[in-house]
Amino acid sequence: MRLLVIGGVAAGMSAAARARRIDPGLEILVLEKGDTVSYGACGLPYYVEGRVRRPEDLIVYTPQYFRQERNITVRTGAAVATIAHPRREVTLGGGERIHYDKLVIATGARPDSAAIPGADLPHVFRLNTLAEGVRLKEYLSEKRPLRAVVIGAGYMGLEAADSLRRNGLTVTLLDAGQCLLHRDDAELSARLVAHLQRFGVETRLGARVKSIEADQVDGIPSDLVLLATGLQPNAEIAAEAGVELGRTGAIRVDERMQTNLGGVYAAGDCVETTHLVTGRPAYIPLGTTANKMGRVAGANAAGARERFSGVVGTSIFSVFGLGVGITGLSAAQARREGFSPVSARIEAPARPRYFGGRPTTVELVADRNTRRMLGGVVLGEQDVAGRINVIATALQNRMLVEDFERLDLAYAPPFATVWDPLLIAAQQLLHKL
Amino acid sequence: MRLLVIGGVAAGMSAAARARRIDPGLEILVLEKGDTVSYGACGLPYYVEGRVRRPEDLIVYTPQYFRQERNITVRTGAAVATIAHPRREVTLGGGERIHYDKLVIATGARPDSAAIPGADLPHVFRLNTLAEGVRLKEYLSEKRPLRAVVIGAGYMGLEAADSLRRNGLTVTLLDAGQCLLHRDDAELSARLVAHLQRFGVETRLGARVKSIEADQVDGIPSDLVLLATGLQPNAEIAAEAGVELGRTGAIRVDERMQTNLGGVYAAGDCVETTHLVTGRPAYIPLGTTANKMGRVAGANAAGARERFSGVVGTSIFSVFGLGVGITGLSAAQARREGFSPVSARIEAPARPRYFGGRPTTVELVADRNTRRMLGGVVLGEQDVAGRINVIATALQNRMLVEDFERLDLAYAPPFATVWDPLLIAAQQLLHKL
Repeated sequence: MRLLVIGGVAAGMSAAARARRIDPGLEILVLEKGDTVSYGACGLPYYVEGRVRRPEDLIVYTPQYFRQERNITVRTGAAVATIAHPRREVTLGGGERIHYDKLVIATGARPDSAAIPGADLPHVFRLNTLAEGVRLKEYLSEKRPLRAVVIGAGYMGLEAADSLRRNGLTVTLLDAGQCLLHRDDAELSARLVAHLQRFGVETRLGARVKSIEADQVDGIPSDLVLLATGLQPNAEIAAEAGVELGRTGAIRVDERMQTNLGGVYAAGDCVETTHLVTGRPAYIPLGTTANKMGRVAGANAAGARERFSGVVGTSIFSVFGLGVGITGLSAAQARREGFSPVSARIEAPARPRYFGGRPTTVELVADRNTRRMLGGVVLGEQDVAGRINVIATALQNRMLVEDFERLDLAYAPPFATVWDPLLIAAQQLLHKL
Repeated sequence: MRLLVIGGVAAGMSAAARARRIDPGLEILVLEKGDTVSYGACGLPYYVEGRVRRPEDLIVYTPQYFRQERNITVRTGAAVATIAHPRREVTLGGGERIHYDKLVIATGARPDSAAIPGADLPHVFRLNTLAEGVRLKEYLSEKRPLRAVVIGAGYMGLEAADSLRRNGLTVTLLDAGQCLLHRDDAELSARLVAHLQRFGVETRLGARVKSIEADQVDGIPSDLVLLATGLQPNAEIAAEAGVELGRTGAIRVDERMQTNLGGVYAAGDCVETTHLVTGRPAYIPLGTTANKMGRVAGANAAGARERFSGVVGTSIFSVFGLGVGITGLSAAQARREGFSPVSARIEAPARPRYFGGRPTTVELVADRNTRRMLGGVVLGEQDVAGRINVIATALQNRMLVEDFERLDLAYAPPFATVWDPLLIAAQQLLHKL
């Protein structure tokens, strides 16, 4: 019985490792088209910044580790060209055919940049693979570029702007939309634009890039371009094999992470998932979700029965010392999804002043009709992750605002104020409901 | 229409302020037996330590503020001797009688130390009022004591041990029980004893103090004694007036914070509440709960209809840089409550190593039969509050372990590892269920 896994980064290696745990006798083969597996792609901005010294430091486990310690065979440089499910086999680029009994497709995603002329010039970079991170780092040290343009103001673009600025470059950030973070939140966007400005990053919104040239991007002088225009699922090979895609263009799976083809699972950035606030399919590629999906896909491919029900859309990033946590829906997103959103935004110290408390911003969004919490944002220099996680846990449990306002949160002066900013925000929201 | 509030610290002032917000026309009078109101008693250890410079820095609002800004009359030095509910009046110690239409009893709690001979000697201190904190601070600077004994190893005793040690005293910590924190958790207790030892605090468990003398406590030389043997509700005046007490000895209230007497509410450290994990009454006096209760009591006394449903038993404290967060039940407590507890304890970095991640310990407890989460502990130097709050939110929502394990928690390298320690602990717990 052979489990074949296509893709050896987050979802693929999680699937392989979990399958091994469930079934010690299973033959497990992982095919990875790149030359490394199991690395933390989310650490790439910190390798560019310089905080992570060596690319190896981002590698969690090597193929040797998987072979020796887990009895999992990993083949790098092995790009799958086609899947022939009726024959239960895949064909590699070189023509080699490999049989499978169970298949996990974890082909990931690629930067969504095909439409911009010049996107393949040598001074244009993405931050989606370790190899690309190394190439960028080498370019920085060898070519000493001075002026960077970052295209795309999602969290990856903001992290990249931070990393490049810390390398001494001037940075201009361009985005086609009217708001940063593609979240239709003008207030959050304005706040971030001002923060970026303070650290010397100029932001231009509504800027749809027409072409990248060797020394400029639409008239903005630049000797380095970073493309962060979002991700597109690598779903083509699967689709050609008869795997059904969802409305988002990513692979559709059930709660077991199984596709429409029996014995064929999919996980990670090539897959769509259920947004637990809207109940609808969403494509939100993130490392943490990829790992969770991979675990469930691997477990079920090995004969267990586990499920992954979806996400509430939690993400977090840091830009020039400011932590930004997001979960659920913004008011504008909620309105588009048919809710009647009401939101409250407060600023309060994250901790008492005598423990060096700095201001933190909390925004909560709820539905006027059901009083259900729909989303939240936490912004600040302290304790952002913990607070956004409380909101995420509340969303996962479909909490009402009045129940959230009564949460028994921890209080002692070194950690928080007696009324946690989360509870102050909930009180404000209750007044408006 | 006059609302009378007995007690002007956390619950009492929250009640008064909230009642004013609900009903701008209400006459509101607060009687406080001490000489200050509205101070943060939880900050007292940090005043003793020296981090908080002046006692005034712990005062949130003055009586003048309440009078001028909120139209609330505050009388300090006004100790209520009796309540005569049939006549709707209270009598002060001096004999003055004051009428009320609605009453909020927020008489707080006192240190539970009556049984120890010598507890009233001048070198014996409690840390329950601002005045007592000032007296201790003066004693430290004037008498320069060298050897302290702290009696009681709950969170207050540990915070006090830390504060006194930082003032240069040797500290011996005594507790009658076999575990620190009265939580029946031998592993946590041993871990804390070792941590205290490392910072020069000697702990003696199973030590029931017989007497305090001027220069020793049961043979341990000491020129300063700090009593932290727990709190006892100030419920006598209420009980004499016919207010029903619960099994815990504290005042029993309904979800509206109303006592068995119509129009008489109670809130704060004199009140018992519902433990939402066990569903049973519990006496857990804490500032954050007192404020929540006070708000609800004040709102309802002023004619609104709000409710406070209970707590899950969340607390947190810091001792020599180690944060300790606790929520819900320990395994031993859960067993006593009739559950079949299973627990898992893990240690993992709070953040990636390249972001200076330090080890964090997470313990989760669940019920074998229902798979419901029952409690948790988080120990570490980073992000303890955020993680214990996620567990508290899960408990409040009666989450199952398998749902907790799928929480969509925030991940980015500056904040957490891709598998948050909470999720790793949940995975371990699932293996054991």
